[in-house]
Amino acid sequence: MTEVKTEIKKPTPTRSTPVKEVSHWDIETDVVIVGFGGAGSCAAIEAANAGAEVHLFEVSSAAGGSTALSGGEVYLGGSGGTAMQKKFGFEDTTENLVNYLMMQHAPQADEEKIRRFAEGAAGHFDWLVEMGVPFKESYYEERVVEPTTDDCLFWCGNEKTWPEIEKCKPVPRGHVVQMEGMGAGALLMQVLEKAAVARGVNVHFDSRALSLIVDEHEQVVGLMVRKDGKVLACKARGGVVLCAGGFVMNEKMVKQYAPRLNAANNPIGNPGDTGTGIQMGMSVGGAAINMHEGFSSVPYYPPASLTYSIIVNGKGQRFVNEDAYHGRIGTRLLEQYREQNNERIYMIADVDAYGNYEEGSWLNADVVATGETIEELEQELGLPADSLSHTMNFYNQHAEAGEDPLFHKQSQWLRPLQAPYVALDMTPGRGVYIPFFTLGGLDTLPSGEVKKLDGSIVPGLYAAGRTACGIPRRGDGYNSGISIADATFSGRQAGVAASQRARSVAYAAQGCVVGCSQGGD
Amino acid sequence: MTEVKTEIKKPTPTRSTPVKEVSHWDIETDVVIVGFGGAGSCAAIEAANAGAEVHLFEVSSAAGGSTALSGGEVYLGGSGGTAMQKKFGFEDTTENLVNYLMMQHAPQADEEKIRRFAEGAAGHFDWLVEMGVPFKESYYEERVVEPTTDDCLFWCGNEKTWPEIEKCKPVPRGHVVQMEGMGAGALLMQVLEKAAVARGVNVHFDSRALSLIVDEHEQVVGLMVRKDGKVLACKARGGVVLCAGGFVMNEKMVKQYAPRLNAANNPIGNPGDTGTGIQMGMSVGGAAINMHEGFSSVPYYPPASLTYSIIVNGKGQRFVNEDAYHGRIGTRLLEQYREQNNERIYMIADVDAYGNYEEGSWLNADVVATGETIEELEQELGLPADSLSHTMNFYNQHAEAGEDPLFHKQSQWLRPLQAPYVALDMTPGRGVYIPFFTLGGLDTLPSGEVKKLDGSIVPGLYAAGRTACGIPRRGDGYNSGISIADATFSGRQAGVAASQRARSVAYAAQGCVVGCSQGGD
Repeated sequence: MTEVKTEIKKPTPTRSTPVKEVSHWDIETDVVIVGFGGAGSCAAIEAANAGAEVHLFEVSSAAGGSTALSGGEVYLGGSGGTAMQKKFGFEDTTENLVNYLMMQHAPQADEEKIRRFAEGAAGHFDWLVEMGVPFKESYYEERVVEPTTDDCLFWCGNEKTWPEIEKCKPVPRGHVVQMEGMGAGALLMQVLEKAAVARGVNVHFDSRALSLIVDEHEQVVGLMVRKDGKVLACKARGGVVLCAGGFVMNEKMVKQYAPRLNAANNPIGNPGDTGTGIQMGMSVGGAAINMHEGFSSVPYYPPASLTYSIIVNGKGQRFVNEDAYHGRIGTRLLEQYREQNNERIYMIADVDAYGNYEEGSWLNADVVATGETIEELEQELGLPADSLSHTMNFYNQHAEAGEDPLFHKQSQWLRPLQAPYVALDMTPGRGVYIPFFTLGGLDTLPSGEVKKLDGSIVPGLYAAGRTACGIPRRGDGYNSGISIADATFSGRQAGVAASQRARSVAYAAQGCVVGCSQGGD
Repeated sequence: MTEVKTEIKKPTPTRSTPVKEVSHWDIETDVVIVGFGGAGSCAAIEAANAGAEVHLFEVSSAAGGSTALSGGEVYLGGSGGTAMQKKFGFEDTTENLVNYLMMQHAPQADEEKIRRFAEGAAGHFDWLVEMGVPFKESYYEERVVEPTTDDCLFWCGNEKTWPEIEKCKPVPRGHVVQMEGMGAGALLMQVLEKAAVARGVNVHFDSRALSLIVDEHEQVVGLMVRKDGKVLACKARGGVVLCAGGFVMNEKMVKQYAPRLNAANNPIGNPGDTGTGIQMGMSVGGAAINMHEGFSSVPYYPPASLTYSIIVNGKGQRFVNEDAYHGRIGTRLLEQYREQNNERIYMIADVDAYGNYEEGSWLNADVVATGETIEELEQELGLPADSLSHTMNFYNQHAEAGEDPLFHKQSQWLRPLQAPYVALDMTPGRGVYIPFFTLGGLDTLPSGEVKKLDGSIVPGLYAAGRTACGIPRRGDGYNSGISIADATFSGRQAGVAASQRARSVAYAAQGCVVGCSQGGD
C-alpha cells in the first residue's frame, strides 16, 4: 500500500496532466475539440466562424460519431415555429416548448438550458439549412419511430400523449434530414463535416485524446493526444471542448452508474462512447450528474396498429398508455421489470392490431400465446383467472366509449380488442430489442462551460452533446431527435464560448491584464 | 471568463490543497478521521487498537453522527449465526447472508464487500459486545419498525417476504442495543465514544474538515481543518479516513443526484450530512457511485394489523406485497408516484386492520374516504367503477384461500378485508411521513481504500459509513440496521487499513525504501 510511483505518469483520461510535465507543445491553437460527431462538428464550425484556429481530434478514422448512426432527426420548435413547422400550419411558441421540455424532464430538468434552447431552436433549424443540411418541405403524419421516406416534419415524442396533451399544445417537432430510407444521420454528418473542413478546421483522425492538461491555476490549457503512435501535447489558448459522446459502450460504467439500463440489450452509439470525455471532465473537478438515467426503447411501431394493443405486466396489469412515445414505454418496461422482480411483460393484441408486425416491426418479440378467448390466453400465459381478463374486459368496455379512464390513452388509439388474441413477449432478456444509451454527463452552463460540484466553473473546459448532461434528462421524457438537437445546439454554444475565451486570453496576454494566466507556457 | 485568481485559494471540500500550499503542520499524527459517528468511532477504535496515534475531527459539539439518531439496530448474521441468533435457535450461514444481500442489492451489489461483511458480521456482534455495547438476551417477534422495548433480536427486513423467502432461509437479523423506548443509537454512540476516548484518540469537536491535502504524487497526506476560528494543517502519516456521513441534508445535491427522493419529505440524519466527505473524496479523483439511490420509508407499522390492508395506486391497482419491509414499500411508493404522473396512492383497510392506527403509527396519513361497501369507497375516491372494487374482490377471493397469486403476500397477513372500509392517503406531499436518506457515496475497496473511476486507489484516503457506497445500494433492498452495521463494520476496516499504512510508511521512511513518499513534508 505504500508503494509510490516516482515516474511521470502516462496520460490517462482519469488523471489530468500538470502543465509542468509538458516539456514542449507539439501543437498550439485557439480551440481544441475532442470528437467529430454532431456536437464536435458544430463546435468546430462556430469556433472557426468566430475566427478561432481550431484543432479537432477524433479517435476513429472518420467523422460521424453517434450522430451519423442516428436517424438524422432533429427535435426543434419554439419562436412561433420553425420555418418547417410554419409551412404546415403548426404554431409553436417558445413557452410551449419550454413547458413541454420542463414537464418531460422535471424534477432534474435544467430550466436555464431548456430556455436557451427553446429560444434558439427555430434559429438552429435555419442555421442547419444554412450549413447545407437538406430538409424536404414535407410533413409525415403516421406514427413511426422514424420515417422510411425522405420526409421531414413528423411526430416523435409525447406531444399527443397524456399528460402532455393536457398541458402543452401538441405540435410535431421532429425535423428529419432529407434522405430516402433510414439513417439520415450519416448525411447530416457529411454536411457538417464538410462545413467544418471548409472553414479551415484542422482535423486529426485516428487520434485518441489522452488527458487534459492543467496549469497551476487549475485552468485547462491543453490536451494530451496520441496520434500515429506519438503522444502530442496540444496547447489550447481558448479551451478544450469535450464532445466525445456518452458512456453507453463502457459496460463497467453502465453497470456502476445506470443499473436500470442493465436489463436493456442493445447499447446504441459509436464504439467511442466509452465515457472518456466524462472521465476527463471529472479528472479536473467537473461534476458528472444524472449518471443513472438513460434512454431505452421498445420500438414496436410500425406497425402503428400495435398501438391499439395493451401492454401488461406479469400480473395482467397495464402500466403505461400504449400510445406514448416508444422511449417512455421502454423506460416503463425496464422499471416494471426491475420493480416487479423480473416478471414477464406482454403486449396483447388482436389480429387487426397485430397487422403486419412480422414484416414491419423492429421489436423482435416472440409470440408466446394465442387464444380464441381472453380467458384462454390468460390460462396459456399462466396468469390467474380474472387477472388479465379483467384488465381486458375493463379496457374494452371503456374503449368502446372512446375512453381510457386509467391511463388516458387517446381516443384515436382506442377500440375494443377482439378475439382471437395474441401475446408478444416483451420481457427484457427474452429477445425483445431494447436499444439504450446514457443521459448522464458533465454539468455545464448553457454556454458549455463545465461546472464543479460547488457551482464554480473549470476555466478553459467546455462540454457538449452526450459528454454533457444536456436537455434530455429522463428516459421517459425523451423524444426522438432531442439528443441530436441538443448535441448540435450545445456544440455551437461551446464553440462560440471557447473562441471568445481564446480572444480574451490573447487580448489579456498583450495587455498583461491577466498576467499569470499564461504562466504555464 | 479569463480572470484568474492568483492568491492561495481558501480550503474547500471540492478542491484539494496541494501540500506546497502548507507552510507548516499544526498537528502530525498517524491517522486522521473525519466524523465521530458510527463509522468514525469504530475507525478510531481500531486504529488506536493497532497502535496508531489518531486525531478525530467532528464538526458538531458532540459525538454521535446519524448513528446516534438511529434506533440502534445493527443488521448482523452469518457464520452459523451471531451469539444472539444462536441463543434463540436461528442458524444463519454466511452463504445465506451473502445470497440475501446479493438478492437485495443486485445488479449494483458489491459482492466482494458483501462477502467480507457476511464473513465478519457475527464476529462484529462479539466485537460490539466487547466494546461494551449492551444487548439484552431477548427476541422480539412482532412486526415493528423498531421495538419500543429494550429487546434485541427482531425481524427488520424482507426475510419473510416474497421473493426473498423462496430463495433464502428467513432468520431475524436486527440486533437492537438494549434501551427502553426508541432511539438506542444514542446509547450505542455513547459506548463507542467512550471506547475511542479510552484508547487515547485525540478528539476535536467543533472542528470542520475543510479540504484534503495532497502531495505531488497524488497521495493524501493530511487534512485542512478549522477549529476555534483557526485553520490548521494536520498531517496524516497513514491516511485520512472520511466518515462524514451522506448528503441527505444537502438539498441541492439530492435534487441533482437523487431526483426520486425529491418526493419524500423527511430527510433523516444529522445536520452534517451535507456531502462534504463525498466532495472531498471526489476532489482527489475518488469516484462517487450509486448517487441516485436512497432509502425511503412509509413506516406504517405498528399497528402491524395494517399489513392486512392493501396499498393501491390512483388506478386502484396494487403494486407491492404489503408485508414487505417498510423501506421497500416506501421505495415502490416513490416509484409509483414518479412513474404514474404523481397520482394518488391509498392504503385500503378495514376496521380490524385499521386497529389502533391513530395512536400507534408514525405514518401521519389522513383518512380520505370511508365506505360501507368497496363500491362506495371507490366512488368516494373518484375511481372508475370496477377498478378498486375488482382489485379488492380479487384480493379477498384469494386471501380467503390464504393466497396472493399476484404479489405473494405471505399467508400470515392474508385474510379477506371486510366492510366497512377506510382509505388512508399515502400520496407523497399530502402529509404522509416519508423519511429518507442517501445510499450513494465514494467507491471503496472492502478495506475502505477509495477507488478512482479507473479502479486504482487514492493512496492515503479511506472512506466508511455513508460517505462510502457500502453494502446497502438499493432503497428497495434496504433493511433496518444495515447502514449502522455497514458503518461500524466498514469503519473498523478503514481504521485497521489506515493504521497499517501508517506503520508501513514509517518503516519505509526509516529504510528509505519508498523515498519520495515523504517528499512533501
